[in-house]
Amino acid sequence: MFARLFFPKNFTLSRGSGFQFIKTRAMKYLTQDEAQKIDQELFNEFAFSVDQLMELAGLSVALALTKAYPMPAEKSSHVLVCCGPGNNGGDGLVAARHLKMFGYSPSVFYPKRTDKQLYKNLVTQCTLMDIPLITELPTASDIDANYNFIVDAIFGFSFKGNIREPFGTIINTLKDVKTPLCSVDVPSGWDVEKGAPDGLQPDFLISLTAPKLCAKLFKGQHHYIGGRFVPRILHEKYKLDLPDYPGTECCVRVSN
Amino acid sequence: MFARLFFPKNFTLSRGSGFQFIKTRAMKYLTQDEAQKIDQELFNEFAFSVDQLMELAGLSVALALTKAYPMPAEKSSHVLVCCGPGNNGGDGLVAARHLKMFGYSPSVFYPKRTDKQLYKNLVTQCTLMDIPLITELPTASDIDANYNFIVDAIFGFSFKGNIREPFGTIINTLKDVKTPLCSVDVPSGWDVEKGAPDGLQPDFLISLTAPKLCAKLFKGQHHYIGGRFVPRILHEKYKLDLPDYPGTECCVRVSN
Repeated sequence: MFARLFFPKNFTLSRGSGFQFIKTRAMKYLTQDEAQKIDQELFNEFAFSVDQLMELAGLSVALALTKAYPMPAEKSSHVLVCCGPGNNGGDGLVAARHLKMFGYSPSVFYPKRTDKQLYKNLVTQCTLMDIPLITELPTASDIDANYNFIVDAIFGFSFKGNIREPFGTIINTLKDVKTPLCSVDVPSGWDVEKGAPDGLQPDFLISLTAPKLCAKLFKGQHHYIGGRFVPRILHEKYKLDLPDYPGTECCVRVSN
Repeated sequence: MFARLFFPKNFTLSRGSGFQFIKTRAMKYLTQDEAQKIDQELFNEFAFSVDQLMELAGLSVALALTKAYPMPAEKSSHVLVCCGPGNNGGDGLVAARHLKMFGYSPSVFYPKRTDKQLYKNLVTQCTLMDIPLITELPTASDIDANYNFIVDAIFGFSFKGNIREPFGTIINTLKDVKTPLCSVDVPSGWDVEKGAPDGLQPDFLISLTAPKLCAKLFKGQHHYIGGRFVPRILHEKYKLDLPDYPGTECCVRVSN
């Protein structure tokens, strides 16, 4: 609020030590089609493997979460990571592993496992790092009693149409929790462009690569851009005009 | 020096803001056999892919380099990344990409390219991110005139026996440069356990996973441990007793 009194609206006072101004330019919000095209270019033209980009994306998710929800002093922070069947779920599995490395206590709920080797490997990595894989989603009140925040890594930018079970029931439970809900790339169940007025209302959103159109409807406290791996040439081609990542950070906080 | 006057030798005053003490415990230095066993366990038991670990290792190399050699204000920082034919060279290619993302100006010298898809992909990524791939190593004086530091990613912990050409000539040139030389995991050409008295004398060493025995002979200014991906269970099995990574950092500075 302080900054708004003295500076134009497109400047915001960044958190952290010292005074630093980050200009939040007119950010590009991607259509679903654009998001899919950039994804395909990263794999086909730039020859990234899913393993590489999922590792960097999941790491940026974990790092942004530690900024938004710092570890309470001398206490553990319990995190429920809900993973869907596709790449968004894979980002969640990677984020869970990095959160564990950072001292958090994640548990993973991964009800529809993907039958691809990478996903099986990500589960093995979590299991051998003592990350519990829970087989049933607790009730909303049990979640509120036991977790500091929830990661929603169920559906990402490829989501279209209706929510299939068991995810309809899961998303309905997540609507009832009071614990902060943190969505990876797109709040699950939202239309990637139009959102969902009666859908999840996350407290945190990390847009991977660039925000999707629905991010304009995000009303939560924390919005980050993550995944510092998009080559300059793609920034230019799609006119992304994202805020600069500070220093060597792999995520950047933005104001909507 | 200040800290040494008042504190026991196994405490060191860390750089950075505020006073913070990092206890440098009796770190484990790995034999070549132990390094190879840990590597195999990461791939076979923990089911990591080379893509995943190389991405995290290369990122930690790039981040440690930015700490040791911060970007000069309003100037570019030119980096020559010399890559060998194996995984150490792959770490170098990944580090070059991340350095470019952080605003540095890396060039890659990669004289013996590996015929594996991952390595071809890493080269494609560098090329499409405008990282020049130079085909001949400049003379020592040309390197000194044109680069701020050099990354030695030629040989890693698997190196044994004699140095084959063209790497013997390359290492001889690197011995003559005055520009800071930065070795990834093991100074190239050093015996992994016994070092090399007349070999390269790097200014910077980043030990990946854990330092190898030869790191005891490192006389340079900057020693980092990098690659925050080793599961706790492996730390315990091999009694690594490494210094704690601060916060969410993926590298940690150590004093030898």
